[in-house]
Amino acid sequence: MDLIVKKFGGSCLQTDEAMRNAAAIIRDTCRAGAKVIVVVSAQGDTTDRLLSRARAMGKEPSRRELDVVMSAGEQLSASLLSIAAAEAGVSCVSLLGWQAGITTNSAYGAARVQSINTERIKKELRTRDAVITAGFQGVNRAGDMTTLGRGGSDTTAVALAAAFGAEKCEIYSKIDGIYTADPALEPESVKLSEIDYAAMQELAFLGVKVLNPRAVELAQKYGVVLEVRSAFSQAEGTLIRENADMEKLLISGVTKKSGVALIRVAGVPDSAAAFGLLGLLSDADINLDIILQSSGADGVGEIAFTLEKENAQRAVCLIKENAGAGRLTVTCDPEVSKVSVVGTGLQSHRGVARAMFGALSETGVNVLMISSSELRISVVVKQEEADRTVRALHRVFIHA
Amino acid sequence: MDLIVKKFGGSCLQTDEAMRNAAAIIRDTCRAGAKVIVVVSAQGDTTDRLLSRARAMGKEPSRRELDVVMSAGEQLSASLLSIAAAEAGVSCVSLLGWQAGITTNSAYGAARVQSINTERIKKELRTRDAVITAGFQGVNRAGDMTTLGRGGSDTTAVALAAAFGAEKCEIYSKIDGIYTADPALEPESVKLSEIDYAAMQELAFLGVKVLNPRAVELAQKYGVVLEVRSAFSQAEGTLIRENADMEKLLISGVTKKSGVALIRVAGVPDSAAAFGLLGLLSDADINLDIILQSSGADGVGEIAFTLEKENAQRAVCLIKENAGAGRLTVTCDPEVSKVSVVGTGLQSHRGVARAMFGALSETGVNVLMISSSELRISVVVKQEEADRTVRALHRVFIHA
Repeated sequence: MDLIVKKFGGSCLQTDEAMRNAAAIIRDTCRAGAKVIVVVSAQGDTTDRLLSRARAMGKEPSRRELDVVMSAGEQLSASLLSIAAAEAGVSCVSLLGWQAGITTNSAYGAARVQSINTERIKKELRTRDAVITAGFQGVNRAGDMTTLGRGGSDTTAVALAAAFGAEKCEIYSKIDGIYTADPALEPESVKLSEIDYAAMQELAFLGVKVLNPRAVELAQKYGVVLEVRSAFSQAEGTLIRENADMEKLLISGVTKKSGVALIRVAGVPDSAAAFGLLGLLSDADINLDIILQSSGADGVGEIAFTLEKENAQRAVCLIKENAGAGRLTVTCDPEVSKVSVVGTGLQSHRGVARAMFGALSETGVNVLMISSSELRISVVVKQEEADRTVRALHRVFIHA
Repeated sequence: MDLIVKKFGGSCLQTDEAMRNAAAIIRDTCRAGAKVIVVVSAQGDTTDRLLSRARAMGKEPSRRELDVVMSAGEQLSASLLSIAAAEAGVSCVSLLGWQAGITTNSAYGAARVQSINTERIKKELRTRDAVITAGFQGVNRAGDMTTLGRGGSDTTAVALAAAFGAEKCEIYSKIDGIYTADPALEPESVKLSEIDYAAMQELAFLGVKVLNPRAVELAQKYGVVLEVRSAFSQAEGTLIRENADMEKLLISGVTKKSGVALIRVAGVPDSAAAFGLLGLLSDADINLDIILQSSGADGVGEIAFTLEKENAQRAVCLIKENAGAGRLTVTCDPEVSKVSVVGTGLQSHRGVARAMFGALSETGVNVLMISSSELRISVVVKQEEADRTVRALHRVFIHA
């Protein structure tokens, strides 16, 4: 008997009609003879609305209580979808995180799955065709509810697929696959029929929101085959698996991430000062993304880094207050974008970097910062130049 | 250390402001040195809204899934109130039914509490001042969530008060006590400072909505002292306990219940036919309230009964279809009211009935039906005469 995990994102459950559509998808798979473990997110913007209701009650709500508030969202979508699926003729039952045996650590709001007790779901699937599980939530050893953080339902789905040795874990959203660039930005972008885990993870980190990077990591670890597909179309999606046939494309995609700020600190006397400065930001829970450090012949150097735009103001103040404002010059560009080219073995192909910079220079884009790894090359550009950058790079690499 | 149970109804939690008000009440009691077990209902009309969302997904949703949907309401109010109470300075934690150890049978939608495991709450109260428990919900032995039916949060509160030997169980709503008649109807109605369980139960059955009759029954069984009081006023409420000092009032209240229909069936040949007719309605899950049967000298008689107005049409059809329409005459008055006088030992005071009928006859009210028990005398009157009936009886008995 085939077992398939299907995860439905919030956009697939937002309206009554969308719910019935998801129910029909489950029914069709069951009719074809498979058992289905369904994992659901909260409907539409429910999570945000719940969060704002909690914040209205207390300036800094306890994380434990926040998780109780938030998990009501997935509870509702699981039970409502179970009712809709039953109406469509599916023999099914809804299960919450604690009922589905999903045990996590106690990091409320960002809990990690520690183990899955498969007993209850196995028991239900003996007599039913589907169980509808609330994603994003679990229970810790103290018996309290936890949530897995943004995109946590993807993680629930992959963890269940791994625990049950499911044939495939299908991730349903409004988007019908992984594209070489955002189709809204680049009409010539191409849907990938396959991509491997590492490249997908980079894409997810770099702004492709359809899949949580932690879930991709987990899928790779347990060899779970993922498929990203649309709940509103019959089109085949994109398969994510090891040794994917990347269709001979060296580059699997071009991504854009906005909402980024760039801060430059000049006049940093030595590397101890540089280290102190980074420690300062880290202590304040400000995560930095790309960090570049350079030093002149006199030992006095510069540090430049990117970070989430929301944290920029706070970072600038912290540096000015604590790091001897007299000697340092801090400049902040609060609105830049990071455009990345993702592919396998980029650094071993020297031609890629050359082609990239050639294309950008031809287009007249001003590159503010560059960072590269085995799997990607990112450039930081002014926000208003980002879309042009995406199109230029896509033209060079995907349709070369 | 005193332990007090406080139950907040939906109207006490409807808005952010109401939530903060409830939080302040909890804080004040904790500051006075008591530990508090709080039990909450869903906010405002949440339960109705959840129910209608579930019905949009399936014509006849499974009762098990309905209970998962519904219990999200109390989950939200418990966690939000816990955040508000913490903000007010209370050391507290929220617990859902399954966490609070409330085990029920599996009658989804109308489950009965079977046992309470006090361990978790005891553990929390060792280090905290309050636990905020989701009312109305429990868990059955299969590990599924159940709900206790309308007014179930009252039952949760009383069951917890009994299990923990609480000093008092306070029922907060918008209403500041039990009155001798609805104050909106009878300006001269008086708030009772005390009332005993049996009379309170009759009042609850007869339309006083502030307290669930099942909860009163449970309170009597375990000797839990109840207090009905307002969350929005400092006024003392009404105490409900055994051997209450009823302030020498023979009568504790006059109630009105509308939404009642009266059906008369004439030409019933014998008592076997009458029995068959009642069985027919019972099989169709139509509950009857007052039933009167009379027979003439020829053995042919009449049955009259009251029932919920919603069921009247269905009952009439059933009788006509199944009970030999030729011989029977069915008439239905779809809009009548039941007005009752409640007190202790009514039947042993023959003067009460006489005074009652005297008052009604003077007022020119047409009594359609009469029924009495040890604790109450009810008259069925036309709906438009009901308010006049309440005022007349209140004048005679409470301000005699």
